Amino acid sequence: MQFELTKEYLEELNSAVEGNVEAKIMELIEGLHAVDVAEILEEQSNKEAKAFYVFLPEEIAAGALVELDEDTRERFLENISSEEIAGKIIENLDSDDAADVIGELSEEKQDEVIAHIEDLEQAGDIIDLLNYDEDTAGGLMAKELVRVKIDWDVATCIKEIRAQAEEVEKMYTVYVVDENDILQGRISLKKLLLAPDATKVKEIYNEVVILVQVDAESDEVAQIMDKYDLVVIPVIDEIGRLLGRITIDDVVDVMREEAEKDYQMASGISENVESSDSAWSHTRARLPWLLIGLFGGILGAQVIQAYEGQLTEHTKMAFFIPLIAAMAGNVGVQSSAIVVQGLANNSLGLDGLWKRLFKELMVGLINGIVLGALIFIYNFFFSDDLTLTIIVSTSLIVVIVFAAIFGTLVPLMLNKYKIDPALATGPFITTVNDVFGLFLYLYIGYLMYAV
Amino acid sequence: MQFELTKEYLEELNSAVEGNVEAKIMELIEGLHAVDVAEILEEQSNKEAKAFYVFLPEEIAAGALVELDEDTRERFLENISSEEIAGKIIENLDSDDAADVIGELSEEKQDEVIAHIEDLEQAGDIIDLLNYDEDTAGGLMAKELVRVKIDWDVATCIKEIRAQAEEVEKMYTVYVVDENDILQGRISLKKLLLAPDATKVKEIYNEVVILVQVDAESDEVAQIMDKYDLVVIPVIDEIGRLLGRITIDDVVDVMREEAEKDYQMASGISENVESSDSAWSHTRARLPWLLIGLFGGILGAQVIQAYEGQLTEHTKMAFFIPLIAAMAGNVGVQSSAIVVQGLANNSLGLDGLWKRLFKELMVGLINGIVLGALIFIYNFFFSDDLTLTIIVSTSLIVVIVFAAIFGTLVPLMLNKYKIDPALATGPFITTVNDVFGLFLYLYIGYLMYAV
Repeated sequence: MQFELTKEYLEELNSAVEGNVEAKIMELIEGLHAVDVAEILEEQSNKEAKAFYVFLPEEIAAGALVELDEDTRERFLENISSEEIAGKIIENLDSDDAADVIGELSEEKQDEVIAHIEDLEQAGDIIDLLNYDEDTAGGLMAKELVRVKIDWDVATCIKEIRAQAEEVEKMYTVYVVDENDILQGRISLKKLLLAPDATKVKEIYNEVVILVQVDAESDEVAQIMDKYDLVVIPVIDEIGRLLGRITIDDVVDVMREEAEKDYQMASGISENVESSDSAWSHTRARLPWLLIGLFGGILGAQVIQAYEGQLTEHTKMAFFIPLIAAMAGNVGVQSSAIVVQGLANNSLGLDGLWKRLFKELMVGLINGIVLGALIFIYNFFFSDDLTLTIIVSTSLIVVIVFAAIFGTLVPLMLNKYKIDPALATGPFITTVNDVFGLFLYLYIGYLMYAV
Repeated sequence: MQFELTKEYLEELNSAVEGNVEAKIMELIEGLHAVDVAEILEEQSNKEAKAFYVFLPEEIAAGALVELDEDTRERFLENISSEEIAGKIIENLDSDDAADVIGELSEEKQDEVIAHIEDLEQAGDIIDLLNYDEDTAGGLMAKELVRVKIDWDVATCIKEIRAQAEEVEKMYTVYVVDENDILQGRISLKKLLLAPDATKVKEIYNEVVILVQVDAESDEVAQIMDKYDLVVIPVIDEIGRLLGRITIDDVVDVMREEAEKDYQMASGISENVESSDSAWSHTRARLPWLLIGLFGGILGAQVIQAYEGQLTEHTKMAFFIPLIAAMAGNVGVQSSAIVVQGLANNSLGLDGLWKRLFKELMVGLINGIVLGALIFIYNFFFSDDLTLTIIVSTSLIVVIVFAAIFGTLVPLMLNKYKIDPALATGPFITTVNDVFGLFLYLYIGYLMYAV
């Protein structure tokens, strides 16, 4: 049932396109959705994709374009005239997708395309939408929706809805507004279908409606829709006028991007890359964090250098350098990941900072004591240096407690100063904890051997 | 507009509940949604929550119960009789939520509750749903949906839909079935509203419908709904009969859980914990990965021990132990995160294994050469041991390339053998790369100093 793109399929399609065998192409793409077609276009060479694109039915061609990666889309649009973009693509899109596509064009081409849109209402909607920042409710919303006036009766509503519905592809909720277009509430189609014709909207509509302001940030919109299990949310302006609606599919994309960004940050990737991107994009995304790691490594080298004499005398201390550094890094990442995730899904609860730090102290102490005891047992049996045995265990406990508290504190601080707390995870916390853990270990060694 | 739980609000509410001031409680909870109430219940003590719960309107009480954490819900249900669960809670829930709640009870209590459900159709639906595995389409679906027969006309449809809609809270799509209840397609309410009364369903319905089998895994369902931007998806059995539907809100939860799980894995957390969980839960979730780290640290200690003589002679080699280990770990995590994410969102594309490894080799080489050159420059100016300078740079390049390839290979292998590839990220890859990186460094040192 579901389309799966294979190498064989792609070869068959490409040879049909090359040979210009329209019947074969149509057979191959029968039943495909726009997103499937986008998947094919992404895998084709530039030339193949261009040749294939002209065979697509208009609606699929427009939809596939929206689903493409931004850079593939850009390459594509360069080869299409403004007139065609307006007439064949924009015509077949909802206002939100249309605005997204147009928004990516150069200023000059934007004006050309808009001038070619025949439906003036659509052109107006698109111009309105282009004004909003991408990452706000305004940037996510579509203008198409179904609205009824609060003083209409059910029969009028049904008639008006029939008229409006022709413009609206998916109609989830009918919004109720007053004569000034101020949002008053909502009414489900179901309720309209079940009510007698003469019933007034004001008698049966639902006053409670969760909404967002047009300037709300997109992750706030995502959080609200997720929390309240909404499929669609209305967007209003400062005085409460109904401007548009945001549907869950766009918000799912926002949520996925957020989650991917946090994941990549935690893994030390500083730009959004996909496996299929070029080696160069990968290098660019990975090198920055590695530079931080390198810098940390140099600091670490300097810390050790400061204790060179001690190490020459007690070479065995070097054995446990990686252990201490790794544990400090691991504990720090664990602690900050918990905070970052709590901030992301608003589940930190009402605990204050001190209570939170106290809990981390407890967790750190338990983990530290367990791991410290284990390494003590190991060293007790396999090492002949009891002082070193004590140094390693003591340091491990101290380092784990420190890393846990530091890992909790940093993302909370970043968040307080409106910096993305996910920055704390990944190589940054690891690197700082590595270096500081190392210092603690060597310093404790210095104290103990001096006794 | 949106509810935000504060300490002050909670105190006010709790004192109203304690004082039994119903009017005040009602005022405080006015306009709240079930999920807001669940948030309150989570923050209250057991006793406060129980006292507050009895004041809630039935529908909110039932909805809030569904939104609670599993363990809070369990504690709650222990204090409610089977009769009340059936009459007050289950009665007010959709079949999917009802089955989820009942499924968490003991076998004995399940039977009692089901025996007390008055609506036999609902009881039947719940029994059907309890048979499905939680993590499959069957476990996610609700039985409530609106269906029409393919040979009906529009007028009959509207009449039947009115009757069926009373049972269905949210109706997104109307499904078209034949006389054997085999799914044939779908028809939008909008189309029904716009068509003349005498039109037959078979003339206007849409044959193309994306669907899932009842035994499909829930992450597959999530992937399909996300890919095709679906709000609702029908579920069929082996012979194509329409069993139920899955709505996007449940799938968003699945997606979030998947993303959180991967994130926690990458951060070295082995069980799903939230910031607000007990110190003990946190310890349990974090200790396993730390044990792996400890084990890796011990292996690392043994690797260094094997080169003790070399280190005593060239103590300066110890300076760069943390740098090599940290870089190996960082590069490995980066590489595996890319693969894990590509597998999770199906974006790996059609590249074969060799092409992918070749790209990693290139990325590793570029990063390695850049970082190797930087550390060479540093050491050239700040170290008086040219051999060590060459050892560190060479090792860094070798270690980075190795870690990149290893980090790519491991999740791909795990996935091939149906093991969660996210296991590869986090401390496992880091630890193996640490130890192996260390070995490479010391071995290259051994070779170079021997020259």
